[in-house]
Amino acid sequence: MNRRVVLAARPVGVPTEADFRLEEKPIPTPDDGECLVQVSYLSVDPYMRGRISGRKSYAAPVEIGQVIVGAAVGRVIASKTDRFSAGDCVMGGMGWQEYATPSADLLRRVDPDAAPLSAYIGVLGMPGLTAYYGLLKVAGVNPGDTVCVSGGAGAVGSAVGQIAHVKGCRAVGIAGGPKKCGWITGELGFDAAIDYKGEDVGEALKTAAPDGVDVYFDNVGGPVTDAVFPHLNVRSRVAICGQISQYNAIDAPVGPRLLWHFIVKRIRAQGFLVFDFREHDDVALAEMASWVRSGQLKYTETVAEGIESAASAFIGMLGGANIGKQVVKLSDA
Amino acid sequence: MNRRVVLAARPVGVPTEADFRLEEKPIPTPDDGECLVQVSYLSVDPYMRGRISGRKSYAAPVEIGQVIVGAAVGRVIASKTDRFSAGDCVMGGMGWQEYATPSADLLRRVDPDAAPLSAYIGVLGMPGLTAYYGLLKVAGVNPGDTVCVSGGAGAVGSAVGQIAHVKGCRAVGIAGGPKKCGWITGELGFDAAIDYKGEDVGEALKTAAPDGVDVYFDNVGGPVTDAVFPHLNVRSRVAICGQISQYNAIDAPVGPRLLWHFIVKRIRAQGFLVFDFREHDDVALAEMASWVRSGQLKYTETVAEGIESAASAFIGMLGGANIGKQVVKLSDA
Repeated sequence: MNRRVVLAARPVGVPTEADFRLEEKPIPTPDDGECLVQVSYLSVDPYMRGRISGRKSYAAPVEIGQVIVGAAVGRVIASKTDRFSAGDCVMGGMGWQEYATPSADLLRRVDPDAAPLSAYIGVLGMPGLTAYYGLLKVAGVNPGDTVCVSGGAGAVGSAVGQIAHVKGCRAVGIAGGPKKCGWITGELGFDAAIDYKGEDVGEALKTAAPDGVDVYFDNVGGPVTDAVFPHLNVRSRVAICGQISQYNAIDAPVGPRLLWHFIVKRIRAQGFLVFDFREHDDVALAEMASWVRSGQLKYTETVAEGIESAASAFIGMLGGANIGKQVVKLSDA
Repeated sequence: MNRRVVLAARPVGVPTEADFRLEEKPIPTPDDGECLVQVSYLSVDPYMRGRISGRKSYAAPVEIGQVIVGAAVGRVIASKTDRFSAGDCVMGGMGWQEYATPSADLLRRVDPDAAPLSAYIGVLGMPGLTAYYGLLKVAGVNPGDTVCVSGGAGAVGSAVGQIAHVKGCRAVGIAGGPKKCGWITGELGFDAAIDYKGEDVGEALKTAAPDGVDVYFDNVGGPVTDAVFPHLNVRSRVAICGQISQYNAIDAPVGPRLLWHFIVKRIRAQGFLVFDFREHDDVALAEMASWVRSGQLKYTETVAEGIESAASAFIGMLGGANIGKQVVKLSDA
């Protein structure tokens, strides 16, 4: 049987486990052009909160009763396409389920000997590419820039600071709690970390970014971002990747108006989605993999076990329970 | 004697005439490198509200007792520089006074036969250049784009919509009251106008910009801008020129958080100042002048008379009392 998680109800505010339902269905049979994949790891990511809200956005929402969308990595166990064979490891959008029959067009072959399978939904997958494109193609960095990243200990943010280092920048991460802050400065080599739960972010930036912030990579939004804006330098760039602090909001969030800062500092801000840059994926992934091999790009994972833990892993991730990439392990590949 | 207006007190909220003081001083004598200029027209502009607030910004504030800063146009009546002679007409930062002794470096020669003198502090001066650069260099336009401009009947906004037309775009102006709206659609040829005082801007945009907004040129900020954001198209650009609705705010303004829109629509927003593009002024002014001559770029002025009316003209302009460029006439050239 195939165990899978479907949307039971549209969450109001913070999602609860009752918004999700685990169900059992027969293992599906691939049609022409599809593979049957046994999933090893599935990804839970902040963007999924938008997808289950029903709110108009850049992609169609998940409907009630549908399998929750998301990237996963696993092994082909049957194929009706000449592009993949049984035994191949693949990554793609397979949703929260133990078995899936994605179209071959939506799969990327991955090498289980080059990196652990789970890395292909993390540092060598969408989150890593998001960090790469947001920093290098959206914001743009110059050696000596100070790069500040919110959500600094998450899958995206932890890569942002390290790529900033590769490019000769000062890396400042904002994260929640001393454990995350210690990890990004100790293990990952960030130049400074700010614990937004224990520190005044604006005050802390005075010492963490003494020359101001040239690039702000925003995963979080809300009060953290409000505190960063006054520290932005003239001609600074803001790459707006996520606003996780706002995703569970019930009423339309309000906060300080920020547009005046744009004029005074000639700030350029740009929102982006990772798939806007899809044509560059091969080059970007090769470069990211080289930095992983050289030790310049480290990562960690928070691993939940079993499809039955997907909802709680997702809910926890929205609240910042994870360090590094949150994945759910379903099977050994 | 030289009558001039100095800052008497830092305004709190909406400025009052008591914040300004008219004083008489002897007509100044130019030093080497300076001219003595009799001012014909002085400019009152929104940015001056920031300059007298004492708030940290992109330029030093006007101190109590100092002459209010601002551009003016007039005639040289004595010169201690070989760059200008008595009789020349010049434009530059001369402040709110009848006579000034600016350094020749800060003056631009203007031709009183090519355009009325007052145009050089309007459509052929800083406001016109602001429209030109904001639309063409900051936002960037393509034929067929819908360009929406707030403050659409002001000195900058009225030029924005007409330049948009020159470039093959649909021009939508947001302005206060039927008179301004009628002027920009009737006289200037905007495709649509929205009266923010009498209409729901968001609702009105559904018909004024049926294909959404590709470029938003923001002079105003606040609730008008809040209403435009949901109508921005994917890959739209926002040129942030001014936030006049917020300039008299006493408490830090709050409003709906806008950054989520940036991600969903991949919006790029950039704040700018006209002097960031100074190297292009000659080319831009020549092009603007050609459009004025061809009748593609029209303008109007609201003229106050006499230095004693400068403060009230400025206060009125902040509240939207002007149509087109607000100037103060001090003398015939």
